[in-house]
Amino acid sequence: MEVDISKAIVRGYAAKLESCLDCDLVVVGAGPSGLLCAAHVARAGRNVAVFDRKLAPGGGVWGGAMLFNEVVIQQAAVAILEELGVRHTRVDDRFVRADSVELAASLIYRAVHAGAKVFNGVSVEDVIFKGDRIGGVVINYTPILLNNLHVDPLSMRAKVVLDGTGHGAELTARAAQKAGIRLETPTGGLMGEKPMWAEMGEKMTVENTRRVYPGLYVSGMAANGVFGSARMGPIFGGMLLSGQRAAKLILEELGR
Amino acid sequence: MEVDISKAIVRGYAAKLESCLDCDLVVVGAGPSGLLCAAHVARAGRNVAVFDRKLAPGGGVWGGAMLFNEVVIQQAAVAILEELGVRHTRVDDRFVRADSVELAASLIYRAVHAGAKVFNGVSVEDVIFKGDRIGGVVINYTPILLNNLHVDPLSMRAKVVLDGTGHGAELTARAAQKAGIRLETPTGGLMGEKPMWAEMGEKMTVENTRRVYPGLYVSGMAANGVFGSARMGPIFGGMLLSGQRAAKLILEELGR
Amino acid sequence: MEVDISKAIVRGYAAKLESCLDCDLVVVGAGPSGLLCAAHVARAGRNVAVFDRKLAPGGGVWGGAMLFNEVVIQQAAVAILEELGVRHTRVDDRFVRADSVELAASLIYRAVHAGAKVFNGVSVEDVIFKGDRIGGVVINYTPILLNNLHVDPLSMRAKVVLDGTGHGAELTARAAQKAGIRLETPTGGLMGEKPMWAEMGEKMTVENTRRVYPGLYVSGMAANGVFGSARMGPIFGGMLLSGQRAAKLILEELGR
Amino acid sequence: MEVDISKAIVRGYAAKLESCLDCDLVVVGAGPSGLLCAAHVARAGRNVAVFDRKLAPGGGVWGGAMLFNEVVIQQAAVAILEELGVRHTRVDDRFVRADSVELAASLIYRAVHAGAKVFNGVSVEDVIFKGDRIGGVVINYTPILLNNLHVDPLSMRAKVVLDGTGHGAELTARAAQKAGIRLETPTGGLMGEKPMWAEMGEKMTVENTRRVYPGLYVSGMAANGVFGSARMGPIFGGMLLSGQRAAKLILEELGR
Amino acid sequence: MEVDISKAIVRGYAAKLESCLDCDLVVVGAGPSGLLCAAHVARAGRNVAVFDRKLAPGGGVWGGAMLFNEVVIQQAAVAILEELGVRHTRVDDRFVRADSVELAASLIYRAVHAGAKVFNGVSVEDVIFKGDRIGGVVINYTPILLNNLHVDPLSMRAKVVLDGTGHGAELTARAAQKAGIRLETPTGGLMGEKPMWAEMGEKMTVENTRRVYPGLYVSGMAANGVFGSARMGPIFGGMLLSGQRAAKLILEELGR
Amino acid sequence: MEVDISKAIVRGYAAKLESCLDCDLVVVGAGPSGLLCAAHVARAGRNVAVFDRKLAPGGGVWGGAMLFNEVVIQQAAVAILEELGVRHTRVDDRFVRADSVELAASLIYRAVHAGAKVFNGVSVEDVIFKGDRIGGVVINYTPILLNNLHVDPLSMRAKVVLDGTGHGAELTARAAQKAGIRLETPTGGLMGEKPMWAEMGEKMTVENTRRVYPGLYVSGMAANGVFGSARMGPIFGGMLLSGQRAAKLILEELGR
Amino acid sequence: MEVDISKAIVRGYAAKLESCLDCDLVVVGAGPSGLLCAAHVARAGRNVAVFDRKLAPGGGVWGGAMLFNEVVIQQAAVAILEELGVRHTRVDDRFVRADSVELAASLIYRAVHAGAKVFNGVSVEDVIFKGDRIGGVVINYTPILLNNLHVDPLSMRAKVVLDGTGHGAELTARAAQKAGIRLETPTGGLMGEKPMWAEMGEKMTVENTRRVYPGLYVSGMAANGVFGSARMGPIFGGMLLSGQRAAKLILEELGR
Amino acid sequence: MEVDISKAIVRGYAAKLESCLDCDLVVVGAGPSGLLCAAHVARAGRNVAVFDRKLAPGGGVWGGAMLFNEVVIQQAAVAILEELGVRHTRVDDRFVRADSVELAASLIYRAVHAGAKVFNGVSVEDVIFKGDRIGGVVINYTPILLNNLHVDPLSMRAKVVLDGTGHGAELTARAAQKAGIRLETPTGGLMGEKPMWAEMGEKMTVENTRRVYPGLYVSGMAANGVFGSARMGPIFGGMLLSGQRAAKLILEELGR
Repeated sequence: MEVDISKAIVRGYAAKLESCLDCDLVVVGAGPSGLLCAAHVARAGRNVAVFDRKLAPGGGVWGGAMLFNEVVIQQAAVAILEELGVRHTRVDDRFVRADSVELAASLIYRAVHAGAKVFNGVSVEDVIFKGDRIGGVVINYTPILLNNLHVDPLSMRAKVVLDGTGHGAELTARAAQKAGIRLETPTGGLMGEKPMWAEMGEKMTVENTRRVYPGLYVSGMAANGVFGSARMGPIFGGMLLSGQRAAKLILEELGR
Repeated sequence: MEVDISKAIVRGYAAKLESCLDCDLVVVGAGPSGLLCAAHVARAGRNVAVFDRKLAPGGGVWGGAMLFNEVVIQQAAVAILEELGVRHTRVDDRFVRADSVELAASLIYRAVHAGAKVFNGVSVEDVIFKGDRIGGVVINYTPILLNNLHVDPLSMRAKVVLDGTGHGAELTARAAQKAGIRLETPTGGLMGEKPMWAEMGEKMTVENTRRVYPGLYVSGMAANGVFGSARMGPIFGGMLLSGQRAAKLILEELGR
Repeated sequence: MEVDISKAIVRGYAAKLESCLDCDLVVVGAGPSGLLCAAHVARAGRNVAVFDRKLAPGGGVWGGAMLFNEVVIQQAAVAILEELGVRHTRVDDRFVRADSVELAASLIYRAVHAGAKVFNGVSVEDVIFKGDRIGGVVINYTPILLNNLHVDPLSMRAKVVLDGTGHGAELTARAAQKAGIRLETPTGGLMGEKPMWAEMGEKMTVENTRRVYPGLYVSGMAANGVFGSARMGPIFGGMLLSGQRAAKLILEELGR
Repeated sequence: MEVDISKAIVRGYAAKLESCLDCDLVVVGAGPSGLLCAAHVARAGRNVAVFDRKLAPGGGVWGGAMLFNEVVIQQAAVAILEELGVRHTRVDDRFVRADSVELAASLIYRAVHAGAKVFNGVSVEDVIFKGDRIGGVVINYTPILLNNLHVDPLSMRAKVVLDGTGHGAELTARAAQKAGIRLETPTGGLMGEKPMWAEMGEKMTVENTRRVYPGLYVSGMAANGVFGSARMGPIFGGMLLSGQRAAKLILEELGR
Repeated sequence: MEVDISKAIVRGYAAKLESCLDCDLVVVGAGPSGLLCAAHVARAGRNVAVFDRKLAPGGGVWGGAMLFNEVVIQQAAVAILEELGVRHTRVDDRFVRADSVELAASLIYRAVHAGAKVFNGVSVEDVIFKGDRIGGVVINYTPILLNNLHVDPLSMRAKVVLDGTGHGAELTARAAQKAGIRLETPTGGLMGEKPMWAEMGEKMTVENTRRVYPGLYVSGMAANGVFGSARMGPIFGGMLLSGQRAAKLILEELGR
Repeated sequence: MEVDISKAIVRGYAAKLESCLDCDLVVVGAGPSGLLCAAHVARAGRNVAVFDRKLAPGGGVWGGAMLFNEVVIQQAAVAILEELGVRHTRVDDRFVRADSVELAASLIYRAVHAGAKVFNGVSVEDVIFKGDRIGGVVINYTPILLNNLHVDPLSMRAKVVLDGTGHGAELTARAAQKAGIRLETPTGGLMGEKPMWAEMGEKMTVENTRRVYPGLYVSGMAANGVFGSARMGPIFGGMLLSGQRAAKLILEELGR
Repeated sequence: MEVDISKAIVRGYAAKLESCLDCDLVVVGAGPSGLLCAAHVARAGRNVAVFDRKLAPGGGVWGGAMLFNEVVIQQAAVAILEELGVRHTRVDDRFVRADSVELAASLIYRAVHAGAKVFNGVSVEDVIFKGDRIGGVVINYTPILLNNLHVDPLSMRAKVVLDGTGHGAELTARAAQKAGIRLETPTGGLMGEKPMWAEMGEKMTVENTRRVYPGLYVSGMAANGVFGSARMGPIFGGMLLSGQRAAKLILEELGR
Repeated sequence: MEVDISKAIVRGYAAKLESCLDCDLVVVGAGPSGLLCAAHVARAGRNVAVFDRKLAPGGGVWGGAMLFNEVVIQQAAVAILEELGVRHTRVDDRFVRADSVELAASLIYRAVHAGAKVFNGVSVEDVIFKGDRIGGVVINYTPILLNNLHVDPLSMRAKVVLDGTGHGAELTARAAQKAGIRLETPTGGLMGEKPMWAEMGEKMTVENTRRVYPGLYVSGMAANGVFGSARMGPIFGGMLLSGQRAAKLILEELGR
C-alpha cells in the first residue's frame, strides 16, 4: 500500500510540474492580487502556474494587522468578496470587515479549484531573458535556498510572468539589476515604495497594475513598489482590484 | 481613513476574541482532523475556537509528501472530499489523488465559513485544570514564545478541548506531565507513536479518536500518538474520518 | 474567574489602543527624552501614545555605563531629578550621581501615571505621510518583526510625531529615505552623529531638539544624529533637558 | 569632563557593589513578589540586594497578557496598589484593572527608592552553601553567560536568600540538585508547577511563600513551583501579597 | 531549450525514484561500507537505492583525519582498493596510505556506475514496520527537515534495509525505540560504541556486520555501535571489509 | 597501531601540502570546469593543486536541479562523458541525460587519479600579487573561517591560477577590488552574470574561458560572471568544454 | 619568500605533532592546574602535549571574576606566583591579589618555554582505551567540530592522561560513560561538583588531585567534579597547588 | 572568606580602571605590534592601557597559519624574540621559526609585567574627539555588544591613541567616517589593504607605522590598511618592528 501511495504522488506531481514547463502565465508570489489573477486567467482556460516561497500561500493576508486577524475592504471590492464566498460585516458606508483567515483560504482554494497549479515551498530565483523579452522563470525549492545548498535550479517558459512579490517587487528588481534593462516606468528604473497613505495607495495600486517590460507585469504592492506609490496597510480592496485588472490585461495579451 | 480601518480591525478582533473566552469547543492544532471537526461542530451551532501556532493553519497538508504537493485519499473518505469541494483523480479501486494545496485551503475555508473562529499565530501553552476536569486552555502569540519574551498568557474556558496537535500529541503530553493525571489509555500514560504502517495507521487513527480525560479528546495523529499506533504518511483519509468522528463524539457530549 | 480576567484585559487593552488611534502626540522610543516629553505633554491634558520596541521601556538608561548602573547628571538638570523623585549624590560642583535603575523606573512611572499610554513590545515600522506633512505612524508587534512573519501593521494618526529613537534617528532616517523629502537641517538631509565630546554633545542635544519636518520633531540622541552633533556617553542631563524642551515646543504647536 | 563622569560612575558602582558583598537579604529575580519584598525589607533598614538577569527588572509584569499590557488585581491587594501609587479601574466586585507598565515601573522605583540595590543584567549562577545552610549567592554578568565566555563569577554572602525566579524556581532547583539536599516540602523535593487554575493558584502562592531550607525562602510563582501548586495567569494580587508575606517572614528571621 | 532540459530532468528523476519504490535493498547512509555494499549488490543485478542526508555522499571518508586528507588501509583490504582503482602507497608491512578524496569519489562512482541509485540530500526519517519485520523506509528531503517545515515524508518498500548510518546507528536506534522491539544483540538493545581501540575496532566491525532484526542489517561503525565495540579512527580497511561482508549476507538473504 | 596510523597520515599530508607550495596551476573551486581542467593539466605532467571550500568537492553538480539528481549534456560534450566513464541516456538529437552523482564522483575521481592534489575543506581567501602579476593564493581551513577565528592563512606560489568559483567569480572579484587592477574585459571590470538564457549561456561560457589578468584565468560560470554573459541552469556541456579549453590555454602558457 | 615561510611552518608543525604521537603525558584542558602540571613535567624532561579547544589557552584565568580581571591567591601558593614571575599585592594575612591577564599569560609561557607542546584550537573528543587502561586520546580541530563537519579525528598514545577540563570533568565523564568503567571514587562514578564553599573547595581540590583510573588523573575543578567537592570561585591557589601535586604524582608514575 | 575575595577583586579592579581614566597611551587591539609598543612605553614609566575585545589578548599570533601553530620571523627581529625570551629555530639565513603560543603568551606577559594595564573582553566603540584632536576612547564590555544590549559605554582620556586593530584599521576607519576628518595619508582617506606580497608587506608595515591624525597613531596591519600596502601572512618580524617603532614615536610625542 505504501508503494501505491508513493507512486500516485510521484506520478501526479511529475505530471503537474511537467504540464507547467511551458505555460501561459507564471504568477510569482501567491498574495491576494496574484491568486485572484491566477484564478481568473485559469478560469478562462489558460495554463497557469503560481509559485510561492512559503509552505502556505496567501502572503500577507493571513495575519490581518498585528495578528488581529481581520481585514478591511472597500465597497468597490465587495463584489469580489461575494464571488469568493467570504462573509463580511458592514463597518460604514465605505468599508466592510472580513475574517483574514477566511479570505486567505478562499483566495487559495478558488485559484487551485479554477485550475491554476500552485507550487508552494518553491522560490523564483531568476527570470529567463531572451533578447528583448522575459520568457520564463528559474525555480528552486525554498528549503534548499534557506540552507545555502549549492544546488542548481530548474527553468520554465511562460508567455507572461506576473510579479506579485509584494513590497520590494523583488522579481522585477532582480531582473532589472541583472539584465541591465530599462523598465516601462517614468524613470526607467524601480521607483521604490513610499510611506503609508491609505487612500492614495489603494487608488494607485490599481492604476500601477500593468506591464513593466515585454513579458513582465506587476500587481498589488509590487506595482506600487515599481511605480513609486504609497503603501496602504491592512485594507485589501486595492489588492483584489489589482488582481482582477492584471487578469484582464494578461488575457488581452495572451489573446492577441 | 487609516483611523477607521484600524478601529474596525481592533474592534472586530477584540469582539471575536472575547466571544471565545467561554466557548463550547477549543481545537488545538489546525490540521485536517481538527479543522474538519471544527467545521462540523460550528455548523451544528456551537461556539468553536481553533488555535494554530503557525501563521497559516493547515498543518501537514500543504506540502503533500516531500513537497510533491499531492495527497492520496481512500475511497471511504471521498464523500468528505466532495463535501469540501476538492477535485480528485482516481488512482485505483482503493484510492484517489488530490492537490494538497486545494485540500488545505478548502479545509480552512470551510471551518471559518461555518463559523469557527480560527486564531492563527497563537500557541496553546497549557491547559486550565480544575479539580478532575480539563476546562480550557492558556494561549499566547507564537512570536512572543519564539523570542522567549517573558510575557504572560491569556486563558479561555471551554466545555471540551480537542488535541489535534499531531505526532507528539503535545497538548495531552504536557497536561499529563504537569498535572500528574492518569489518561484513559490502556497504560494510563501516553503510549507513543509507532513506525510507519499505512494500513494499520489509517485504521487505528479513527478508532483512537476519543476522550482521553474528562474534557479532553484526541484526533488525527495525536490520537495514534496517545494510544501507541502506527504513523501512515501522506494518505489523509484517516485524518478526515477522525475529524468527522471527533465532531460526532464532541457534539454528543455537548448535547448531554 | 479566568474568563473575567481575560475579558477585563482584552477590553481594557482594546479601549486603550483605540483611544490612541487619533492622538495629539506619538512618541517613538521610550528613552529619557521621549518619556519626559510624554509625561509633560500628557500632564498638560493632551492625548499621548508612546511606542517602544523592547518589552521594557527606558532605553539606554537602565545599564548606566558598561552595566555599572549609575548615571551622572549636571546641576542644570537636578531640578528634573527632584521632580522625578530620584535620589542623587553630589559628585562636585558640576555633577550629581544617581542610580540608573531608579531613574529609568521613575521616568516610565511618571509618564504613564501622567496619562501617557505606553505600548511596549511595539515597533514603529513607518510613518503616515500625507502630501506635505507627517501625519501618524505605522506599528507592529516587535516579536512579529523579529520572526520575519509576513503580517501587516496597524496605523495611527497623530498631530505630532516625536523621534526619540536614539543614535541612528531611525524614524527620521526611514521617513526621509522612503519619502524622498528635504529635512529642516542645514544640508536638508540626516547629518549623522559625531564621535564623543561630552560637553559639546550635552549642549547641542538641547539646541537640536526641534522640528525637522512638518509634523515631526526630534529629541535626545536622535536630535544630535539628525543635526550632526557629538555623542556624550553616560551623562543624562542633556537628555532630560531635551525632553523638557521637546514638550514645550510640541505644546506650543498643539496649542496653535 | 569625560574623566570625571567615568570616575563618578566607577566609584559609585564599586561602592554599591561592595556594600552588598555581605548583606541581609539577596533577592534573586526582580518580579513583583521579589521587588515588593525588597522594598519592604529595605524600608525596615535592612541591607538588600536584588539581582535580575535581564537589563530591565520587572519580570513578567511588563507585558500584561499576550502583550495586551493590562493586568488584573484582586480587591485584597488594592491597598498595595495604592501604596505603590498605581492607578486602577474597577472591573467588578472582585477585581480592578491596572496598566502593566505603570505597575512594573512603580514596583522597581519603590524598591530602589526604599534603598534596595538592584543589579540588573546580573545572573545568579549558584548558591553559597556552608554546612547545613545557604549563605549567599554566586553572580555573573548575564551577557558573559549568554556568550558562553569562560569567566569566573563573583560571590556574595547574605543572611537570607529569596528565590523569586518564577515558574521554574530555578535557584531552588539548582541548589537542591547540586547540593543533594532535602527541601522543607512534603516530598523533600521540588514538586513542580501545576496547570492553570487561577483561584487556586492565587490562594496557594501566598500560603507557599515560606522557608524551604535554612537560609532560603521562596515567593511568587517560584513558591508554587516548589510546592506543586497551580499557575494563575495575568492576575497579580497573589504575587503582591506573596511579596508582602515574604518580607514579613524574612524580617522576623533577621530580627531574631 | 530550457523546457526540454527541464522535462528530461523531471522525467528522469521521477522514473528513477519510482523504480526504487519497491526495491531489493535500501542502504541508509552512503559511507564506505554502505557504498561498497551497494556496488556489490547492484552488480549482482539487484535493485538498490542508497540514501544520504548530505548533498555529497561519502560520509567520513572525504576529510581523512582532521582534514589531513589521507587515510590508512590494512593489507587485507588492499585488494578492494585495487578493485576501486585507488592509488596507494606502502607505509609498512601492515598498512598502505591513500588519498581520502580519491577513495571517497571512487566509492561513490563505482556504486552508481554499478547501477545503484544514490539519492543525495535525502534523509531517512523512519522505517516501515509490518508485524514482525522491517519492510522499508520513510524518506524526506534533508533541507525540508533542517528548516523544520511541516511536510510529510514519502515511503518505500525494500526486502532488506542496511543501516550504514555510522557512529550512532541512528536508524536502528530509532526503529528500536519507536517500535519497542528486541534486537538480535546479546542484550536485545543497542549496546553503544566504545572508546577508540583501533585493532579491536577494525576486527569487530567485520564480525558485527550482520542482521539485527528481520529485514535490517548493520555495517561499518553502525555495526560497532549496535554491538558495543570500539571505534577505530582514520583507518578504513574494516569499513571496506564490512561493506563486502554485508553484500554477501544480503545477497544470500535475497537469493533465498 | 594508532601511532603508526597517525604518523602515516601526518607525514603523507605534510608532504602532499609541501609539494604544492610552489606549483604550476592552482584551481580555485572544484566544480566541473575546474576539475576537468585539473585532470587534463595533471595528466600532462604538471603539478596541480585544487582547493574547494566544502568538505566534498564537486560544486553544483551533485544536486542536479532542485535535488532532482539528473543532469543534461549536449551532444558536443558526450565525448567527455565517455572519457569520464559516465553512463548516459539519449534524450533527443541535441541532448543526453546522466546521473548527477555519477558525474560528480567521476570528475573528482579522474582529477585526483590523474595526479592533481585536491584540498577539500580549504578556502582561498586572497591572491598573492607581485607587481603586475598574480603569483599564487592564500589559503585557510574553511571551518576556521566559518567560526570567525582570528587565525592567519598559509600562502602558495603558482605559475597560473584558475578561478573556477562559479556564479560570483569571487576570486577575480576580490583580487580586482583589493588590488585595484584593470581586468582584460571590455570594461576593465567584472561585468556581472546575466539572467538565464540556456543556449547563449552555454555558448559563451566556452568563449569566455580565458585569461583575465596576467597569471589568472577564468572558467565555467565564473567566466560568464566576469564577461557579463547569461547563466544556463542544469545543463553541463558548456562547463565541461570550458574546463577542456582552460586546460588547453593553461598548458600553452605553461609550455612557453 | 611566501614558499619558504609556508614550508617552514608546515614542516615545523608536522614535526611537532609527530613528536607527540607517542608521549609521556597528555594534558587535556590548558587551565591553571593543567598548564602548571605540564610545565613541571616537561621541565623534568618528559614529553608533554597539552590540548585546549579554544584558540587561546588559559581557561578561566583570563577573565578574573565577571571580567574584573584580578584574581586572589592564598599565601600557600605565593611561592608558585613567584616562580611564575607574576607580580602580586598583599590583601591581608591570608591573600594576595594578582592581575589575571599576567597570571594566564605567564602560565602559558612557562609551560611552552619548559618544552611542553601546546596545541590550541584542538579538542579531545575521546580516549583510547585498551583492555583495562586508558592509553591515549583522540583529537580533532575544534572548528571542525563546531561546524559539525563529518571528519574523522587523529589519535595519540600517552603513558598518562590528565583531565584538566574544569567544572564538568568532561573527559572523565565521557570515558566513564562510553567505556562503562568503574572510577576510583567512593561511588565508582562521577560524583558531581557541589555549590560554592570557597574554603572547602580550595582544600579539597588538592586532595582530589589523583588517579581516577589506570592511566587517567584529574586536577583542578575537574578533580572536585569527579569527587563531589565544592566549587570555589575566583581564588586560584588551589588550582596552582593541584597542578603542582598532579605533576608530582605523574612524575612518580612515569618514573616507575 | 568569599566576601574578602570579592572585596579584593572589586577594589583592585576599580582602582586599576580608575588609574587609566586619564592616561598617556591607549592601545586598541592587543596584537603583536600593540602589545610590544605597550610594553616599551610602560617600561619607560608611562601610564598605558590596552584594550582587546576578545577574552584572551594576542590577536592573530595564537593560531600560526591555519592552526599550524608556528610562526616565522626575520633575522632583523630576532633580537626582539630574545628580549621576549622566546625560543627559536633557524630556518635559513633569512628566517627563524618559533612556537606561536610561546610568542603570544610572552608578548602579553611582558606587556602586563612592564606595567601596562590590559583590559580584556573590552571593545573600543568610538573615539573622543575634541576640536582638532583625538583625545581618548569610548569602551564597553564586548559581551554587552555581542548581545546587542542597549547599554552606554564609558569614556577615557589619553594623550595618544594607537590603532592596532589589524586588517581593517577599524578604529581609524570609524573615526574618519564619523568625524569626517582628513587623515595624514596621501589621499586623506583610508587607502585599504592590498593583496598578499610578503616582502613588500613586511617592509611597508614598519614605514607606515606613524601618526595619522593628531593624537592617533597606527601600527601593524592597521598601518598597511591605512596606507594601502600589502598583507604578508604568518611572518611576524614586521609586526614586532612596527610595535618597536610605534613605541619610539609615541615616547617622543609624550616627551615633548
